[in-house]
Amino acid sequence: PAKTGHAASQDEKREFMSIFPDLVRDLTEVGTHSDIPDAQKWFAKVLQYNAVGGKMNRGLAVSLSFKLLATQDLITPENIKNAHIMGWCIELLQSFFLVADDIIDGSKLRRGKPAWYLNDNLGPSAFNDAILMEAGIYKILHKHFAHVPYYVDMLDLFHEMTLKTALGQALDLLSCPPGQKPILKKFTMERYNSIVKYKTSFYSFYLPIALSMYMAGITDRELHRQARTILVEMGQFFQVQDDYLDCFGDSSITGKIGTDIGKGKCTWLSVVALQRASPSQRLVMEEHYGVPEEESIRKIKGLYKELNLPATYRAYEESTSSMIRTHIQQISRGLNHNVFFNFLDKIHKRSS
Amino acid sequence: PAKTGHAASQDEKREFMSIFPDLVRDLTEVGTHSDIPDAQKWFAKVLQYNAVGGKMNRGLAVSLSFKLLATQDLITPENIKNAHIMGWCIELLQSFFLVADDIIDGSKLRRGKPAWYLNDNLGPSAFNDAILMEAGIYKILHKHFAHVPYYVDMLDLFHEMTLKTALGQALDLLSCPPGQKPILKKFTMERYNSIVKYKTSFYSFYLPIALSMYMAGITDRELHRQARTILVEMGQFFQVQDDYLDCFGDSSITGKIGTDIGKGKCTWLSVVALQRASPSQRLVMEEHYGVPEEESIRKIKGLYKELNLPATYRAYEESTSSMIRTHIQQISRGLNHNVFFNFLDKIHKRSS
Ligand SMILES: [Mg+2]
Ligand SMILES: [Mg+2]
Ligand SMILES: [Mg+2]
Ligand SMILES: [Mg+2]
Ligand SMILES: [Mg+2]
Ligand SMILES: [Mg+2]
Repeated sequence: PAKTGHAASQDEKREFMSIFPDLVRDLTEVGTHSDIPDAQKWFAKVLQYNAVGGKMNRGLAVSLSFKLLATQDLITPENIKNAHIMGWCIELLQSFFLVADDIIDGSKLRRGKPAWYLNDNLGPSAFNDAILMEAGIYKILHKHFAHVPYYVDMLDLFHEMTLKTALGQALDLLSCPPGQKPILKKFTMERYNSIVKYKTSFYSFYLPIALSMYMAGITDRELHRQARTILVEMGQFFQVQDDYLDCFGDSSITGKIGTDIGKGKCTWLSVVALQRASPSQRLVMEEHYGVPEEESIRKIKGLYKELNLPATYRAYEESTSSMIRTHIQQISRGLNHNVFFNFLDKIHKRSS
Repeated sequence: PAKTGHAASQDEKREFMSIFPDLVRDLTEVGTHSDIPDAQKWFAKVLQYNAVGGKMNRGLAVSLSFKLLATQDLITPENIKNAHIMGWCIELLQSFFLVADDIIDGSKLRRGKPAWYLNDNLGPSAFNDAILMEAGIYKILHKHFAHVPYYVDMLDLFHEMTLKTALGQALDLLSCPPGQKPILKKFTMERYNSIVKYKTSFYSFYLPIALSMYMAGITDRELHRQARTILVEMGQFFQVQDDYLDCFGDSSITGKIGTDIGKGKCTWLSVVALQRASPSQRLVMEEHYGVPEEESIRKIKGLYKELNLPATYRAYEESTSSMIRTHIQQISRGLNHNVFFNFLDKIHKRSS
C-alpha cells in the first residue's frame, strides 16, 4: 500500500474530473438509443448540470482509499481510473438523491446554482431526470465492470445503499413533512441518529470505502462489517458538524446560508435543545422552529446560545473524535488504518 | 412445455396475489432495518397502497410464459413461485414509474383511488416512496435469486429496462411538458413510435418474457433479440389501442375516463390527425389540443371523427395484428410461438 493518503490533491481532482466527459459519452452517445437523439441530448444536459460542481469528496474517496488498501501490483493506472469511474457512480447516486430532495424540500439553490427543477419550468418532471441519473450508474457499471469478479458484490452494494438512503429519507420526512410544522415530539436523539445513519452515512461514508475494498480484493464480511461500523460513526460525527455549521458556521467560509431552522429539520442542535429545554423554552421551539421568518430564526438561535449549545458542541466534537480514533485503532490490521484516519482528519475541525 | 397458455385464470391470479404479503414481509420485517420501525411501517403502507390493484398483466406474464418455455422438469411449484416473485418485481417497477408519473402529470386518480401523492399531504415527497419501491425490487431479487446462475443477467435486464423507460419518459416530457401547451410540431409518427417503444414496450412486454426466458435457461442473445423485436411490435399495437380506447372506448367497460386530449398527450390519434389535417383543421388542433375544457375536448373528438380516425384505427388494428402473426411465425422454433400468440390474443380486439 502507498504511504500517503491525505485529502485529495488538485491533481487528483483534475484527474477525476477529466473522466467525466467520457462517462457522459458512455451514457449518451453509445450505439444503443441512437434512435432517440433528443432524449440523449437531454440526458447529457441533465448530467452536465447536476453531476458536477460539488466537493466530490465521496467520488474522490474511492481512489484515495484504494491506493491505501490495495497491494502494490494492483495500483495500476487502469485500476485507478476504474476507481474514479466508481467514484463517479457515487456522485451520480448523490445527484439522484439531491435532485429529488430539492424538489421535495422546495429548495432554491444547490451548489450555488438554482436547483435543477427550477430550470426550464421543469417542476416535478425533474424527478425523471433524477431517475435517469440513477439508471446511468448501472449502465456505467455494466460497461466498465461487467467482467470483474466483484461485479455482483458492487451491484448488491449500490442497491443496498440506495434502499437504506431512501429509508432514511422516509424517516426524515415522517418527522419533518415538507410544508407542515415539524413534529417535535419525534425529535429524539435516537431518531436523529437513525436518520443520519440511513440517509447520509451509508452512501457517503461506507459506500466509497466498501467499493475500494472490493477493488482491492477485500471481500471478507467481517472486515466489511468493521469498516461499516466505524464509517457510520464518522458519518454521524460529520452530520453533527454539518448541523452545527448550518447554524453557527461562518457563511463566508461555508459558502451557504443555513436553512435548517427555517425548514424545521431534525438536527443535532434541535434535539439537544429539546432535551434541555424548560417548559417555557420548549414553547419557543414549538412556536418558532420551522418558521422561515428572520424573527423566528433569531429566536431559535438565541435559545440555542442560552442553552449553551456551542460549548456542548465543542465538547461533543472533542470526545467523539477521540472515541473514533480509539475505535480505528481497534480495527483489524487487515484494513490499513490510514484509510480511516485520513477520513477523520478531513472532517475534524473543519469549518466548511 | 405445457400446452395451455391463455390469459391468466382466476386461480393463477389468486396464487400470484397470495405471494404479495410474503414479499412485503421480506421488505419490511426482516432483521435488517429493525432499528427503524417507523420507516418499515411506512414502506409497508406504500407497498399496500401502490403495488396492488392493477390488472397485474405484466406480473402474471412471467409464470404464464415460463410454463410455455421451460422444459417439463423445470416446471416445479418452487420455480412457478419464483416466476411469481419476478412478476411482482415487474409490478414494483411499474408502481415506481406510476407513482412518479402521477406526480409529474398531476393526475388525480390511479386504479380507481386517489393518486398516492394526494394522500396525507404527501405531495412531491411521494417521490421518495417511488424510490423505495424501486429499491425493493433489488432487495427481493437478492433474497430470492442471488444464487441462481441468471442473477446477473436479471439485474442487468432490470437496469436496462429502467433506463429505457426513463429515456422514453424524457422524450414524452420533451414534447408534452406538463402545465404547458403540447409542442405539436414534435408530434410525428417517428417520435410517437419512439416514445411508446421506450416508455412502455420494453418494460411491459419484453421484460416479463425475457425474465421467463432466463428462468427457462434461454440465454442465447439471438433468441432474446427475436423476442424483443416482436414484443416491441406488440407493445406498439397495445399502446395504439390504449390511445384509441382513451378517446373512443366505452368508459363503462374501460373503467376510466379519457384524459389524453385534455392533457395534450402525444397519442396515435393526435399524430394521425396532424398528418391529415388541412391548415384550418390544424388550427383547431393548435387551439384546442391539450386544453382540459369540455368544449375543447368535444372539438378535438369531432375533428378526429371528421378525419375518419375510427375507421383508420380499425384498419390499423387488422393489418397490424396480421402482420404480427406473420412475424411470430418467422421466429425461431427455439421459442414456443404460443408465448407470443397468447400475448397477442389478449390484446387483439380488447375493449378495456
Ligand atoms: Mg434538502
Ligand atoms: Mg430533505
Ligand atoms: Mg446541513
Ligand atoms: Mg400519466
Ligand atoms: Mg406522464
Ligand atoms: Mg392511455
